[in-house]
Parts: sequence; structure tokens; C-alpha cells
Amino acid sequence: MDICRLSAEAALARMETGDLTARDLVQACLDRIADREDAVGAWTFLDPDLALSQADAADQRRRDGQAGPLNGIPVGIKDIIDTADQPTENGSRLCAGRRPDRDATLVTLLREAGAVIMGKCVTTEFALSAPGKTRNPHDPARTPGGSSSGSAAAVGDFMVPLAIGSQTGGSMLRPASFNGVYGLKPTFGTISRAGMSPLSRRLDHPGIFARTPEDVALAARVLMRRDPADKDMRGHAGLGEADPLTAAPRLMFVRGPAWERGEADMQRAIEDLARGLGDVVQEAELPPVFDAALACHGMVMNGSVVQALGPYYDRDRAGLDPITADRIERGLTVTSREYLDALYQAEAMQDALAGVFDGIDAILTPAAPGQAPRDLSRTGDASFNGYWTLMGAPAASLPLLKGADGMPIGVQVVCPWGEDAKLLRICRWLSDKVGEWR
Amino acid sequence: MDICRLSAEAALARMETGDLTARDLVQACLDRIADREDAVGAWTFLDPDLALSQADAADQRRRDGQAGPLNGIPVGIKDIIDTADQPTENGSRLCAGRRPDRDATLVTLLREAGAVIMGKCVTTEFALSAPGKTRNPHDPARTPGGSSSGSAAAVGDFMVPLAIGSQTGGSMLRPASFNGVYGLKPTFGTISRAGMSPLSRRLDHPGIFARTPEDVALAARVLMRRDPADKDMRGHAGLGEADPLTAAPRLMFVRGPAWERGEADMQRAIEDLARGLGDVVQEAELPPVFDAALACHGMVMNGSVVQALGPYYDRDRAGLDPITADRIERGLTVTSREYLDALYQAEAMQDALAGVFDGIDAILTPAAPGQAPRDLSRTGDASFNGYWTLMGAPAASLPLLKGADGMPIGVQVVCPWGEDAKLLRICRWLSDKVGEWR
Repeated sequence: MDICRLSAEAALARMETGDLTARDLVQACLDRIADREDAVGAWTFLDPDLALSQADAADQRRRDGQAGPLNGIPVGIKDIIDTADQPTENGSRLCAGRRPDRDATLVTLLREAGAVIMGKCVTTEFALSAPGKTRNPHDPARTPGGSSSGSAAAVGDFMVPLAIGSQTGGSMLRPASFNGVYGLKPTFGTISRAGMSPLSRRLDHPGIFARTPEDVALAARVLMRRDPADKDMRGHAGLGEADPLTAAPRLMFVRGPAWERGEADMQRAIEDLARGLGDVVQEAELPPVFDAALACHGMVMNGSVVQALGPYYDRDRAGLDPITADRIERGLTVTSREYLDALYQAEAMQDALAGVFDGIDAILTPAAPGQAPRDLSRTGDASFNGYWTLMGAPAASLPLLKGADGMPIGVQVVCPWGEDAKLLRICRWLSDKVGEWR
Repeated sequence: MDICRLSAEAALARMETGDLTARDLVQACLDRIADREDAVGAWTFLDPDLALSQADAADQRRRDGQAGPLNGIPVGIKDIIDTADQPTENGSRLCAGRRPDRDATLVTLLREAGAVIMGKCVTTEFALSAPGKTRNPHDPARTPGGSSSGSAAAVGDFMVPLAIGSQTGGSMLRPASFNGVYGLKPTFGTISRAGMSPLSRRLDHPGIFARTPEDVALAARVLMRRDPADKDMRGHAGLGEADPLTAAPRLMFVRGPAWERGEADMQRAIEDLARGLGDVVQEAELPPVFDAALACHGMVMNGSVVQALGPYYDRDRAGLDPITADRIERGLTVTSREYLDALYQAEAMQDALAGVFDGIDAILTPAAPGQAPRDLSRTGDASFNGYWTLMGAPAASLPLLKGADGMPIGVQVVCPWGEDAKLLRICRWLSDKVGEWR
């Protein structure tokens, strides 16, 4: 196997035995990027020397017996997340050349674990919907999805084994689906957003892309740490070790409120998957309290995006992509009453969700309407994701399905609040049981 | 001493030795109410038989060795707090005859501690500013303050040793000042609001009125319990025993941004007090980040009152007092952007406040502009209180000062978040050192 195709776990094992150095691994990833970046466009900043110097430092730490859990592993960082040694431009010309003076908390945690901060991955403008330059690595005529476009494409194209993205609507799990990788949006408030450009404190979730469930767990164990600088963090039991399940999980197949927006090949594929799993899966509809979920998500998002990005809009509307400006404008007339009504309705749904999980371990539901659209002017439809983002529950996309054109389609798995460890065990079980799209 | 004048602590001691029964105590309070209610108007619901039957049950529990920490103690409940056995009308004719089907969490806690839920105390309409019937017991031409008018007046007039109120702007500490009693607004999120009519989830604080700091502590120990039904509760170390301080506290005298609204006798009295305490007190101004506090408080309040009370307004504007309708209308145009800007600015102030307390134990500042105004059409000026309500820090009003007409004036003491136990110790120290207004 090409070195760049190794999972983080496999690469760590080889580095541990001395079969591989961090320099070799980072160089292999840089070579892959050199080959493919013109076609994929996943990176907005990449400095090979800076990456290699971090690799050398990692090799030294390993020789010194000081290797952290991600020692020498290259990680791509969505460009809305601050890095002190690399620019952070939020995908916007309004932030061109911006150099933060400190790392985001999650970058600090990655560095402390020994990771090589490989470079900055393309984001849509301010993590909204105006696309960047990235193309889908499996078909360059197709979108990679957004907003974490570069992060998902870089992992899907074997440029890095791990990358960090974020989701406010569907910006982790949609690109995970489109690029054929695993994506995890952990429970709300379990990875710090300090040093990340905000859209909505109520909805923003950092997340992890990888090519195996084990790699997702590896990064999650590093990143899920309480940080007083993020006011919205929640207590969390920690992830523990993501051992395989010993018994089959009890799953509930939920078509969900956006089912009609799904494409036929996706619908067929996920129905076949649910059927194929047999007694493990029961089908259900969500109770009526959830009917307002998509409307609530839109209201909370519009009402908070205008607060987060309003100052850019006020300063230089013309400097924003019209898609971004339009989104901000959708928030200008949201009243506090509408915003709070939606927020409190969403809380009632979160409470009701606990009841939905009664007697089951996880919900199985589509991660995207289908294959990545052949359209580079849009990043695709997040209507299968916003719902679960609003719930705050941990959700993952698994690259288990294949669409009519042979492109990947994700399956979304959702667990109760705080059950991230269980979610990762179920991901591994499903992936072993069902097999991946390739 | 008349039985109705006993503190809760003293009454409990006498009940413990058998010198007093709960029936005697409740009857003494009922007699006091019978004498004085026409003049004071503290109660909106009072059923002597219901109170006495609770007293008899308390006496039976004591005989059975099952007396809780408030066994047999009569407590008045602000009429925005639900009681299953008594009406809860929120001071509004829109809620006339309303009978909740369950107790608010704090009422449940009081009952579990053995308290006698004496009756419902007058609130302004929906705890905003439209006055109820209550008059100041120390001068019936004067307001008792609001919105916890009846609760503060009932304690100040020896009708009950304890009463529960609430504060969103200055609705605990202003009436405490005007009625010459102790008032505690504990740290935000430490007493459940489940079952209480809301104005603002960000600002609403239940609180305690009593005639001694020890009685405040007694009730606080019962009430400061985490409740999952209130989404905004915070972790709390608990109150512990409110032992006297062994050394003098380090105090900071802060005139605050509303100082100019204070009356000359109040200003002189609190300056004399600060000076009289000597080295224990240093004077300071708050840093500029707090300049926006009153504006932020107003924005958060208006933006959330419209959400909380909007449904009443929509249904029957004419059924509301014009003062209430006007307050709701002030919120109709608040945008989510304005609301969230204010909310996040307030968080920055809360962070900055921690620095203000560096090297000091508590802030000493006025609780009200002066004596209770001779005006029954208004409940007085809350501008010395909203500031600290926004901070979420624990604050108390102590009846230490006397105004030009011999009326009480409170001193407000503020401690850092979560330092409620320290606050109560400082209240006791100050009250011993300075003496009370009478």
C-alpha cells in the first residue's frame, strides 16, 4: 500500500516499530498532494518545509520516548480554524493574509498529541455556502460538498489520513458522504470552538474526517477536552477505548423529514442496507414534535449568522460573495422573539429525542440526498443534516453506499447525547458488517 | 417577643425543645396578617385552614422524628411561582383563577423540608412593573418596591419569617431595601425556575427574603438544588454551613454607574458606612467594559420578555396593564443580532468581573437609590440592581442604612460567581458590625 494511503492507526503502528518515520509519511502525503492538488484543490495553504520540520520534530520526540497519540500524523485543518504559524483566511477575501497570533484550542490539542499540522484546507466563505476551489476527488465535475470541502476531499483523496472540519448545518456529514470518508460530528460542546470563526454558538460543531472509524476515534480522544474558552462546552464522560461491539446494536431506520428530497438510487441503497441487516433494524417515524426541526434550524442559524458575520457585512458587503451576503441578509429581520422561540422549541425536541432512543442504540438515516451533484457552483443540500445538528446529538457519516454513477453515498448514524463512544463502536460494527463503497 | 417576630432559626429552636408548636407559630403569623393585611396588602391568596393543616402535619412529623430543616416554618410564595394547592395568577387578570396542576420545583423543595406554604404573595403583573395592591409596611404611602412586593412586605411586616421572590432586573434587592429586610439573589442557575412564570431565561433569578442572614442561609440550603427541569442550572458546590467569618472580609466600595440617580441621604449613609469600616474597605471604579452593562441588561430583558409574554400580548393586549404591554412592545423590534450582541457582551463582563474580585472578597454598593418613594403607581428604580443581575453573581441587600425619613435603605453586597456561602458570611459579619436600620 502506498504510504499516503495508510490509516493513521496503521502509520502509527509502523512508526512505533521503526518501519516508518514521520518524515516518510509526511513526504508521501506531500507527494500525493503535489500529484493531485491541481485536480482537487483541497488546500488553501501548504508549506512543505513547515510540514517536514514538524515531522522531524515528531521523529525526534519518538526517539526521545515522548511520542503522543498522534505523533507524526499529518492533519489538515479547515481554514476557519486559527493556526499561529499559518494563515487563517476563513475562505474570504476580507480575511486575506490574516495571521492569527495563536492556535485554536483544537490545534493546540493536536500539536500536544504530536500531530503535524499539515496545512489549511479550503472552506466555503466563512463556512457558509459560497464554494471554494475544491473539486470532488472521485469526479472533478462534482462538488466535494461544503463547507468543510477541502478537509473532506483531502482525506478522500489520500492527501492526509485525518482532517478537521466543522458543521453548523451539514458541513461535516454532507462532504463526508460526497467524498466517501467517515465524518464525525460529536455531541455538541465536546470539542472546543475557541479560535474558530463562528456562525452560531448554538449550532457550530467541530468534527473529524478519516478513512476508518478507528482513526476518527483516535482523533476524537485527543480533541474531546473541556476548554473554558468555549462558553458552550458541556460535561462529557470522555470517549474511552472504542472497542468493537460484542453484540449487534439495535438500530432504528428513520427516513426523516427530507426523505422526498433524496434521489432514487440513494433511497434504494439505504433501504436495501436496512433490510439486509435484518432483525437488527426496525423502521420508525419520528414523533410530530420534530416536524418543526428544519424550520427551527433555519431560524436559529439565520438569527445567529447575522450576529456572527454582521460586522463583515457592515464593513464591506461587496467584499462578500453574494451567497454569503444573502445568507446574512436572511438574518437581518429575525427578531429575538423568533430566535428564542426556535431555540426553546429545539430544546423540547432534544428532550423528546431521548425518548426516541428508548430501547434502541442508534438511528440510521441518509447523510445526503445522493451522490455529489455535478455542480461546482453549489455545495449540495444539507437537509438531511441540519435536523441532527439542531439536536446536538453525536452523528457520523459512513461511506457504505454507492450511487448510480459509482460515487459514494454516506449513511448517517445518530446516537443519544454524549454517546460518542457507542456511536464509534457502531460505526465500526456497521463498516465491518456492510463493507465500504469502494 | 411576639411569636410572629421570631426568626425561622429561633422558632425552629423553640419547636425543637417543645416550647412552641408549628400550629402556634402559624397561628401567630395568621393573627399578624389578620391585623395588618388591610394596611399592607401583601397576600393575593391566603387560606388559614390550609396553612394550619400544614402546621398540624409538621407538628406530627416532629413528633415522629421526621422534621426537616424548615419543619413548620411559614413561607410566603410570590404569585408567579406555581403551587398545586393554591391559585397562581401571576398578578394578571389574564390568569385569574389559574390553578397549576403541580408545584414549582422550589415549592416542592420547601415542602420536603417541612415548610408551611403559607399563601401567595402579591407580585406586579407578570413580575414586570405594574404594581399590585401592596403598600410599604413602614409607611403605607410608599411603594414596597417590586416585583416581589408582597413577599418582601410580608417579611418586613412580621407576617412570615421567610418568603420567596424573584429578580430579573431588581425585583428582589430593591424591595428588600424598601422593606428593611435581607434579600438574597443567589448565583444564577442555583435555584430552579421550573414552575415559575418566566421573563428571561438569561436573567430570571429566584431569591429569598428573611429578617436575618441566618434565615436566608437556612432557606438557601434547602433551595439550591440542581433540577433537570430548569435547563439553565449551573453546577454548584452547595452552600455548606454559613459560619461567621473569623477575619474581616476585604471589601470594595463601588458607587457604580447609577450613583447619580441615588438620593443624597442614601449617598451620605453608604459613604459613611464605607468610611466607618476603615481599612477593610477600598474604593474603586469598575473598568470600562462594564459601561455597557445597563444597556445590555435592557436589551436582553426586552428581547426575552417579548418571547416569554408575547403569547399573552397576542391574545389580549387590552387585558394587560399598559405598563406591561409597553414593556412587551419595547421588545417587539429587538433583533436576534441585537439580542445576541448584548448577551455575548454580558458574558465578556462576567469574565471581567472575576478580575475585579482579585484580592477582594465582596463589592459593597447601593441596593436602591434611597428610601421607598412616596408613589404607589410605580415600584421604584432598579438601576442599582440590573447591573448585577446581568452579571449572574450572587448579591444580597442588607437593611443597614436609614434614610432622611427614618425609612430603611439597603446595602448591596456582591460576591464572585458561586461564592454564595461567602456572601452570607459577609452579610452576617456586616450586620453584626454595623447594626441594622431600626
